[in-house]
Amino acid sequence: MARIPKTVRPAYDVESLTDVAVAVFTARGYDATRMEHIARAANVSKSSLYHHVANKEELLGRALGRAVGALTAILDEPGAQGGPAGHRLEYVIRRTIEAELRYLAEVSLLLRVRGNTEVERWALDERRRYQERLVALAAEAQVAGALAGDLDPALYVRLVLGMSNSLVDWYRPDGTWSARQIADTILDLVRRPAVRRRQKPTVWSAKVAGRV
Amino acid sequence: MARIPKTVRPAYDVESLTDVAVAVFTARGYDATRMEHIARAANVSKSSLYHHVANKEELLGRALGRAVGALTAILDEPGAQGGPAGHRLEYVIRRTIEAELRYLAEVSLLLRVRGNTEVERWALDERRRYQERLVALAAEAQVAGALAGDLDPALYVRLVLGMSNSLVDWYRPDGTWSARQIADTILDLVRRPAVRRRQKPTVWSAKVAGRV
Repeated sequence: MARIPKTVRPAYDVESLTDVAVAVFTARGYDATRMEHIARAANVSKSSLYHHVANKEELLGRALGRAVGALTAILDEPGAQGGPAGHRLEYVIRRTIEAELRYLAEVSLLLRVRGNTEVERWALDERRRYQERLVALAAEAQVAGALAGDLDPALYVRLVLGMSNSLVDWYRPDGTWSARQIADTILDLVRRPAVRRRQKPTVWSAKVAGRV
Repeated sequence: MARIPKTVRPAYDVESLTDVAVAVFTARGYDATRMEHIARAANVSKSSLYHHVANKEELLGRALGRAVGALTAILDEPGAQGGPAGHRLEYVIRRTIEAELRYLAEVSLLLRVRGNTEVERWALDERRRYQERLVALAAEAQVAGALAGDLDPALYVRLVLGMSNSLVDWYRPDGTWSARQIADTILDLVRRPAVRRRQKPTVWSAKVAGRV
């Protein structure tokens, strides 16, 4: 029997099969995806696929794990651990944007998860915990005067993450804006140090007048 | 034959059936929803349902029409038509947040639309047109000095809408924050009038130092 040369088929491992699964989940939706769709997209037999992973939930778990892992790893980085609270908050926001851009498709899946299965509930829990850590950091920055005292830290963090999460809807790597420009603009908008106000702010003059 | 008293069943019309459909689409997902699910949720027979609407796509179209209609109507309001560009921009952003909170479930459906059908493509087109009108308004505000010149109006609008669109993910009517507080906070974050900078800004002092 003739043997197929090894070079004809790419050598898949769990990581590259997860890449394929992410693309198929994104195109078809997770619920509508069956293992045979993933096998076909990877150009392997279904039994080869099952040799690597138990089911599509495992592949979703690995995809969500990338997004969750990239985000939570940020909190252990030196820039998130040391220095003034305001700097740490800014660092974590910038790195969150970078992680979301790096794992755009995985984050997009994470944001759509509803908690239907155990792995989805795990991912939702991790996402909530990450958000809580950011709220604590924002509150710390507020005490240090690096974030205005009239902001609610929990509302602030939801809005900051709302901006960065929106990237999954409109960011294209070959698009108009660089990752750096997007991060700079978001930080420019959400940077709100505490200031002493000398007069009641009006609609547009609030920040200008209030900070003289 | 005994007649069922009229009071036993609520009198449905197309609007109230759309309400039911929105709830079912939200819970099940649009693709997984069948007309019989909507009929059961409304406690009417399938033939009664078909007496009012042709198919589930018509119900989706009506739901999306509410969201799109509420948004595009804003642009014709006096506050969006007259006065300085900066005020008009702020007005439209505030009213967008209010409309999204008023039609939270419908907007949530609108944001998930992928353009698989004619009505979905129509809704995507309308959403894109609305965004373009906001970009034009932001550019006008920039010319008038009400928005900092270093912001890219198209990026700015995507980020502002990213924040307000995130409401569909986390806002609860009985929650911690009022609609007013949310709108005030978003406007507080995105208000960035042009200023003359007298020194190179540092990380946190940028806005304080730059606007003295």
